Order: sequence, then C-alpha cells, then structure tokens
Amino acid sequence: MERLEEVMRELRGFVAEREWEQFHDPKNLAMAVASEAGELLAEYRWVSNAEADTYSMGDEQRRRIAAEAADVGIALLLLCDRIGLDLIEAIKEKIMLNRRSYPVEQSRGRWRRPS
Amino acid sequence: MERLEEVMRELRGFVAEREWEQFHDPKNLAMAVASEAGELLAEYRWVSNAEADTYSMGDEQRRRIAAEAADVGIALLLLCDRIGLDLIEAIKEKIMLNRRSYPVEQSRGRWRRPS
Amino acid sequence: MERLEEVMRELRGFVAEREWEQFHDPKNLAMAVASEAGELLAEYRWVSNAEADTYSMGDEQRRRIAAEAADVGIALLLLCDRIGLDLIEAIKEKIMLNRRSYPVEQSRGRWRRPS
Amino acid sequence: MERLEEVMRELRGFVAEREWEQFHDPKNLAMAVASEAGELLAEYRWVSNAEADTYSMGDEQRRRIAAEAADVGIALLLLCDRIGLDLIEAIKEKIMLNRRSYPVEQSRGRWRRPS
Repeated sequence: MERLEEVMRELRGFVAEREWEQFHDPKNLAMAVASEAGELLAEYRWVSNAEADTYSMGDEQRRRIAAEAADVGIALLLLCDRIGLDLIEAIKEKIMLNRRSYPVEQSRGRWRRPS
Repeated sequence: MERLEEVMRELRGFVAEREWEQFHDPKNLAMAVASEAGELLAEYRWVSNAEADTYSMGDEQRRRIAAEAADVGIALLLLCDRIGLDLIEAIKEKIMLNRRSYPVEQSRGRWRRPS
Repeated sequence: MERLEEVMRELRGFVAEREWEQFHDPKNLAMAVASEAGELLAEYRWVSNAEADTYSMGDEQRRRIAAEAADVGIALLLLCDRIGLDLIEAIKEKIMLNRRSYPVEQSRGRWRRPS
Repeated sequence: MERLEEVMRELRGFVAEREWEQFHDPKNLAMAVASEAGELLAEYRWVSNAEADTYSMGDEQRRRIAAEAADVGIALLLLCDRIGLDLIEAIKEKIMLNRRSYPVEQSRGRWRRPS
C-alpha cells in the first residue's frame, strides 16, 4: 500500500474512534484547511524572503513548521476523503491545466499569467 | 514509484522549466498555500453545513472544488519540497501527537481539547 | 477627531515606539491580516451555522472573538496606513461596485452573482 | 456622524435590500473575512518584501489592493455588526493588551514576544 493510502487509513480510524464525522462536513473541513494554513503562514509572517530558507532550517522553527504543514495536509486529506475526491488525481489534472495557462516560453522567469 | 512521488517529480519539472524557483522561497509558498486555501474556503462560504455534502457533488461545483483542493495541495507539496520536509512523515508524527492531545474517551463526540 | 483616526494614531505610536516599521512592509502586513483572519476563522470552525449566533454570545467565546476580530482590524489598518489608503473611502467605492454587480432585483435572497 | 458609522449604515442597507441576513450568520461572515484576506494575500504572493511598497503604488495594483482591502473590511464590519461588537472598542482593548505583551524595552526592533 502507498504511504498516502496508509496515512489516509490512519486518519479515518482516528476520526471514527472519536466520532468526529459529525463535525467533518466539507464546509467545516474547508475552514480547517484555511485556519491551519493561517497558522503555517504565521510562522513566516515577519521573516523576510531572503531569510526564509535559513529560518526553515532552525530546529525549533522546523518542528513548528512541520506540525503546521501536517495540519494543513491532514485537513485537506480529510476534506478530499469526505467528498470522495482523489487528491493526487486532482493535482495531476491541475498541473495539466497549468501547463496550458503558463506556457513555458511566455512564463519563464515571470510569475504573471500571460494575457 | 508511489503516485505522490510521481506527482512531486512532475511538479519539480513544471517549476524548473519556468525558472520559478526564484519566487518559491518558503515564505512565498506559505502565502500560496494560504491564498489557495482562501479560494477553497470561498467555495463553501455561503453554503450551510447541512447542504455542504450535497453541494460538493454538483458537477460544476465539484470541478471547482477539485481545482482549489489541488492548488492547496500543490502549494503545500512545493513548500515541503523546498524545505526538505517529508509531508507524509510529518502527518504521521502529527497524528501521534493528536492521539495524545485528544484521548479517545475524553474526546468522543466532543471537538474541544480536554483540559 | 473620529474614533477611527484616534485608534489609528494610537497604532502608529505603538509601532513607532517598538521600531516595528521595518517589519511592516505591505507584504508582511497582508500576511498578518490573513493569519489573524485564520485565527478568527478557527473560532467558528466546528460550530454549525445554526449555533453560530448563540455561540458568539458566550462570555469566554466573545472575549476571544473580540480579540481576533481586533487583530484582523489592526493588521488591516496598519496595511492601509502603510500604503496610504483610506480604508473607509475604499469601502465606500467597493459598496458602489457591489451595487452594480448585485442588482437588488436579481440578488434578493440569492448569494450568487447574476450572470 | 462618524464616517465609520455612515459606512456601517450603508452596509446594513445593502444587505437588507438583498435579504442577505439569512446568509450572514457569524460563521459564514468569518469565512468571508478569511477568504477575502486570502485574496488580499494573493496580491503580494510573488512580490518580495523589498518591492512590496513600490508595488503597492502602481495604478493597476493599487486599484486591486484597495478593492481587496475593502472586501476584508466589509466582511469584518458585517461580522462585528452581526454579533453586536464595537470593532473600534475591541481594537483599543487589544492595543492595551499588546502594550503589556510587548513592553517597549524588550520589544524594540524585535518581533518576537518576550518570554
């Protein structure tokens, strides 16, 4: 079994044991994704772009960042599971769309969508 | 190769072709995670809890929700890749911590952390 | 002086005393707005729509919600101040735009933008 | 009447005409605050700290940033109005708390909360 499937199975068990499915409708889980993303964001709020890579390597910061990234991932996986969406499949499709929206030649070194 | 690794490899290629590593420091990627999470959130903003499951099944909504969930996933994977963090491992560790913070008996059917 | 101007003056003093202008470029302040909004969101994450009004009245919750709403407001005011934007003026203009985007007749009782 | 009160009165009229109070429970409005904050954030996502002030002055960007800041402000004011919270008062109280959490001497030029 893939590691992602394994972790998904663990998450389902964690939620079921606590009878938390009642709180986990897609609206609440989308809120969980966004509030956890806000906490991840808070880690980098006052750190400059130039310092952000080094900052991420500090032991204490790394532990916190890993925990926040995990929280976002957990909420996102629970949401996808709840609505029967295969996240990996959705990402593959989005990459295909992005290839069309950002053609290599017009997008090289530029972050704006070509108009 | 696991599907997650495959998609990660595709993402790395997508970014490298466009020379976007220069924009993808951890601070900017954390902002990307949060702004994409805000778009996912917007999908459910005016939908009630009671309607959220059914809402997620509508064809048009589903397509949009899948795209937004994918965007969050992509940004999160890029961030983890940038700082050398194994997201699946981080999730497993967080689940272990959550098991301690939310013991089954005190947490059943209750969303508050036991004090 | 209007209360909003008074509070703005207080905020400027608070920041200046601590020499925090160096951290308060518009990018960082936009991150502060979003991460504080994530904390406000977290307050309502597991509360249903039906319970949200009553929930907001509980003493302990109210104290927390007030603090989170204030944090969003503070970050937003600091951002507007930094870029020389009159927030009240911007809101008035946005209401005018919204009146056009959501004409009364087509929008009554419907949250979708008329197409 | 203060400009803030004026704009609040306008917002109430805008919502009432469209019979949108039914969507505007505190949970949904907190989601609106966060999703609008995500859009504001998106404006600065790929802009570096060093460029953020200049970026905010460009005509086209300024128009967009003003609209996003206004959207956050509108959602926040609607939420406060819904739960009967005086935002300015809440901000004043939060500034007082912040004065205690970040004493001038220990906080000068440092963004971390003194431990």
